[in-house]
Amino acid sequence: MFNIALFGCGRIGKVHAVNIAAHPNTQIKAVIDPYLEGANQLAKQYGAEVMSVDEAMSNKDIDAVCICSATDTHADLIEKAAQAGKAIFCEKPIDLSLSRVKACLEVVSQSGVKLLVGFNRRYDPQFRTLRELFESGAVGKAETLVITSRDPSPPPADYVHVSGGIFRDMSIHDLDMARYILGEDPSSVSAHGACLVDPAIGEAGDIDSAVIVLHFPSGAMANIINSRRSGYGYDQRIELHGSKGMLKAGNVREHLVEHWGDEHCTAAKPQNFFLERYKDAYIDEWQHFVDVLEGKSEPQCTGIDGEQALVLADACLTSLESHQTIALK
Amino acid sequence: MFNIALFGCGRIGKVHAVNIAAHPNTQIKAVIDPYLEGANQLAKQYGAEVMSVDEAMSNKDIDAVCICSATDTHADLIEKAAQAGKAIFCEKPIDLSLSRVKACLEVVSQSGVKLLVGFNRRYDPQFRTLRELFESGAVGKAETLVITSRDPSPPPADYVHVSGGIFRDMSIHDLDMARYILGEDPSSVSAHGACLVDPAIGEAGDIDSAVIVLHFPSGAMANIINSRRSGYGYDQRIELHGSKGMLKAGNVREHLVEHWGDEHCTAAKPQNFFLERYKDAYIDEWQHFVDVLEGKSEPQCTGIDGEQALVLADACLTSLESHQTIALK
Amino acid sequence: MFNIALFGCGRIGKVHAVNIAAHPNTQIKAVIDPYLEGANQLAKQYGAEVMSVDEAMSNKDIDAVCICSATDTHADLIEKAAQAGKAIFCEKPIDLSLSRVKACLEVVSQSGVKLLVGFNRRYDPQFRTLRELFESGAVGKAETLVITSRDPSPPPADYVHVSGGIFRDMSIHDLDMARYILGEDPSSVSAHGACLVDPAIGEAGDIDSAVIVLHFPSGAMANIINSRRSGYGYDQRIELHGSKGMLKAGNVREHLVEHWGDEHCTAAKPQNFFLERYKDAYIDEWQHFVDVLEGKSEPQCTGIDGEQALVLADACLTSLESHQTIALK
Amino acid sequence: MFNIALFGCGRIGKVHAVNIAAHPNTQIKAVIDPYLEGANQLAKQYGAEVMSVDEAMSNKDIDAVCICSATDTHADLIEKAAQAGKAIFCEKPIDLSLSRVKACLEVVSQSGVKLLVGFNRRYDPQFRTLRELFESGAVGKAETLVITSRDPSPPPADYVHVSGGIFRDMSIHDLDMARYILGEDPSSVSAHGACLVDPAIGEAGDIDSAVIVLHFPSGAMANIINSRRSGYGYDQRIELHGSKGMLKAGNVREHLVEHWGDEHCTAAKPQNFFLERYKDAYIDEWQHFVDVLEGKSEPQCTGIDGEQALVLADACLTSLESHQTIALK
Repeated sequence: MFNIALFGCGRIGKVHAVNIAAHPNTQIKAVIDPYLEGANQLAKQYGAEVMSVDEAMSNKDIDAVCICSATDTHADLIEKAAQAGKAIFCEKPIDLSLSRVKACLEVVSQSGVKLLVGFNRRYDPQFRTLRELFESGAVGKAETLVITSRDPSPPPADYVHVSGGIFRDMSIHDLDMARYILGEDPSSVSAHGACLVDPAIGEAGDIDSAVIVLHFPSGAMANIINSRRSGYGYDQRIELHGSKGMLKAGNVREHLVEHWGDEHCTAAKPQNFFLERYKDAYIDEWQHFVDVLEGKSEPQCTGIDGEQALVLADACLTSLESHQTIALK
Repeated sequence: MFNIALFGCGRIGKVHAVNIAAHPNTQIKAVIDPYLEGANQLAKQYGAEVMSVDEAMSNKDIDAVCICSATDTHADLIEKAAQAGKAIFCEKPIDLSLSRVKACLEVVSQSGVKLLVGFNRRYDPQFRTLRELFESGAVGKAETLVITSRDPSPPPADYVHVSGGIFRDMSIHDLDMARYILGEDPSSVSAHGACLVDPAIGEAGDIDSAVIVLHFPSGAMANIINSRRSGYGYDQRIELHGSKGMLKAGNVREHLVEHWGDEHCTAAKPQNFFLERYKDAYIDEWQHFVDVLEGKSEPQCTGIDGEQALVLADACLTSLESHQTIALK
Repeated sequence: MFNIALFGCGRIGKVHAVNIAAHPNTQIKAVIDPYLEGANQLAKQYGAEVMSVDEAMSNKDIDAVCICSATDTHADLIEKAAQAGKAIFCEKPIDLSLSRVKACLEVVSQSGVKLLVGFNRRYDPQFRTLRELFESGAVGKAETLVITSRDPSPPPADYVHVSGGIFRDMSIHDLDMARYILGEDPSSVSAHGACLVDPAIGEAGDIDSAVIVLHFPSGAMANIINSRRSGYGYDQRIELHGSKGMLKAGNVREHLVEHWGDEHCTAAKPQNFFLERYKDAYIDEWQHFVDVLEGKSEPQCTGIDGEQALVLADACLTSLESHQTIALK
Repeated sequence: MFNIALFGCGRIGKVHAVNIAAHPNTQIKAVIDPYLEGANQLAKQYGAEVMSVDEAMSNKDIDAVCICSATDTHADLIEKAAQAGKAIFCEKPIDLSLSRVKACLEVVSQSGVKLLVGFNRRYDPQFRTLRELFESGAVGKAETLVITSRDPSPPPADYVHVSGGIFRDMSIHDLDMARYILGEDPSSVSAHGACLVDPAIGEAGDIDSAVIVLHFPSGAMANIINSRRSGYGYDQRIELHGSKGMLKAGNVREHLVEHWGDEHCTAAKPQNFFLERYKDAYIDEWQHFVDVLEGKSEPQCTGIDGEQALVLADACLTSLESHQTIALK
């Protein structure tokens, strides 16, 4: 049984809390959150203790940390956990600053602890099946990857200020997915965007609709289509077009009951947002982290993956502002 | 170029008129209908003459007749055409009385003319593809055939009186389809039904909803589901379940554009009724009749097929009234 | 926390064991199975004790029993549990003999304990959504219910001898579903069948393919299509056709990734069998039983439901053998 | 009845020949093609005369020309027809050189004749339905338009030399479609591409895979995804994402019969290529031209549309070569 210190009791912290508690080999030992009421409530629910950061880090019984706190605390907590010799699961991103990420990963590297970065979509059963079929040769050589990724509705404009912008906050998942599926790093990035959904997002200096084109050394291209609003739930689809055909991973609907009526036939919308759509992915992600803790697997999504996704997100911003395709080294 | 005498200018007569005229090897020479205004109009449109029945039958230039007139005239017209040596296309049914059908077919047989009975669905590209796949062995040996066949809305109750009832008017198509796909004659029939759609249909002595179960000598069963109302267009589906899997022919929708909205995702309804759904089937049916005229093919839907479908429809009625399964010789 | 005695460690016992253990308010206290090795293993896994039937029934700490043992032990165990004052969850069927079921339910009734009978499909999210949409008026008045239910592959012929035959073993689920969705008891039953899948099933006196037609007092009809083999996974579909349209609950596929290739487009098969297809249903079923234990709900699937389903299954057999529609009181 | 002079007897000329002949108000009067054997054959089939270009242009009986000849003859024929006062239907493109197009359109403008440019996809019933739903407000304000357009297999490399390259030959249809659906001209173009399908295409100086991003003055973006090879038929899809939801026009399959088997479920591929996929579009396009001839409609796809599509195709090439987004005036 591995004892876990959970940092952060927000929406995503609660998702991981359920999965940590449900896994037969892990339990929540410590809950850490500056918002004490939330920490107390979660600790009580799972029979854990509320601790300070330092208490948790110095507690010998704690085997690993699960970092779900605010983005700007990630890098510090990773470093402290690494120095304390704890295995680390950290929600994406490591940090919004690339130099900070690099420094943080250097500390992790020195410490020798295992770090798993939380790009949850890598564990989605649909996308994983698509990737496995691709790797089995089902569509030959990859030619064009199309990732459609639209949130159901835009975040409040004040979130935009802390999010790092659409590329670092939202597209970063899709940039990681492109690397994950194609198995290589892009050689160039071209990003396009507009503020179409909410003028307040534009006033905050961000865009809410984006189209990204990536070239890869193999010749393959990836095309990412993002929006902060779908109007019909969480739109999460992938098409991989190769030399021998196409693989399509469609949306997961709320249910499978159709209604045929006198005006049209209706089917359910896609599941509303990531908590529903990636429920199984979060469970499988935690299972993978337990495999890492048990020495059965190396982290499949490393600090380097976290860094590379940020490199791509930053390049998107440069491309958007310069109206040019950005070559990557 | 074959000269055709068209009997009947109603809805189905007009469908055939278009196809006769559009075919490079046939033209409408004569139009016959007691409703003279309709006959004149159609004749004018296609450069044909309005004739009486006897004028048409005795006209040496006429090669074939296309009988689309009222059901109770079919058998008489078939006999006259046979005696006049004209090839015959006749819309289903030959007659609502089995003894009349037998007598009529005897006349046809004596005459040696070709008779094609118009079970239009046999030519539907979807159902034909299903049958071809079945015959190619795609699902092995047939086990259960399920035919769903629902009209968009019920006919007026006064039509019920002349229709011969749901089994002879509507189910007869599905009974023929079961024979056509499975390639054998049923050994027993069990029919069930209720008046659920329109009480006036019940008052007229008919039902509007039916479930029919057929057994075949090979062991296969067929299950027909009928309703005089769907509420969502013309529901025409076939499932064939065999020892190695299933074939499903789905509905043809009005169009393929989906709308994903904030309540649900919508797709178009099935095409509304037989004029749309079986438009291509009518064209292919006429092509087959031309092939018969040109000696390239024997009629694929004969008088015997027309008779057998009526035998089954009659057995359905006996079963419905007796609450028993009816064995067929 | 409710302590549960689990009777039977077979396939279905293990499904319930997982769900009992995962539920925050229940735990497995006792495991009872004549096959001691299996009982020991399961008890060890969940920190429970292996007990005899009498030990479990007389144990004051045990609040409820979960009966997953062989069918011919169900009625005895229900009676003992009722006499011991334990709440009862029992897998279907109560017994294969209707008189035995009636006697057993009389004992339960005298005791006053709660009895929940395990028709798992009632809790399936798809079918439940269909039922809720129907009850909300989405398709008006029910006219025809079509239940397609095909197992992936036939059971061994020696299972046929203890199963009670296809109607009591397999169709019973669909008969219950028809009652559940339409909310009324049928007024007549007509059953048809054949042995098409495995001759050994026929030699054992059973059929493996069935079509059942039910009439209901409201006028609605239900049409059940069963086979012991699909060849493509577990085929579990429901269509409800009403005065204002149709509701369709389709199959749940293994995954949602399509492959478009040079011969055709492929999608995944339905989930293979009930353990996968009804995984969520079993969880929701157990939740409902916990609600019953906590006094928050009355059993939604009672002894009467178990009895009625058996009445219908027996009537199917009578109909099959007599080739007649069987009226029910 | 309008007499038509048909220029060009190739694949597309034959498509129009069928439709001209089938339309009740048009007939083929003259056939013009330097390949005399083909011209004679087509003329004989439709009861037309073989003529030289000058004979056709000076023939008083000819009302309109249908230009389906080689691309490099289009502009000359348009000018001659304009000067002869014939109404003009011309297959896309007018010419591969923008200056030649401008000069040609000036001649047309001076002459006052009607010119309809043949962007066939504008008449596709699926895309037209999508456009009508958009214009009716079904998805609110347009945000992102995604056009997937993949040919089944690449053309021979020597065709590449005369085609003007993928943008002028293939993407031009999608560029026109983006203008047609969104109803405005783009403000910028960014094009990306690679040679992934056939090295010979690359050696000929062209690419075979492309991703194009367009910005429009309204803020909307369009994303075009092209490939010279799909491996699964003609992939022709459009998604329009707006402020209130999404419209999706899917592929048209060869048939609607599914096969559920022991490995997976299969459905038919998309129709193979444009002759099948756009069969109805060509018929509706010709109907529109007849409406123009009859004075019932103005050309819905004008010389300006032809010119603008070429402007965009040229800008794509500039963007591809410069790795920059190209602003359009």
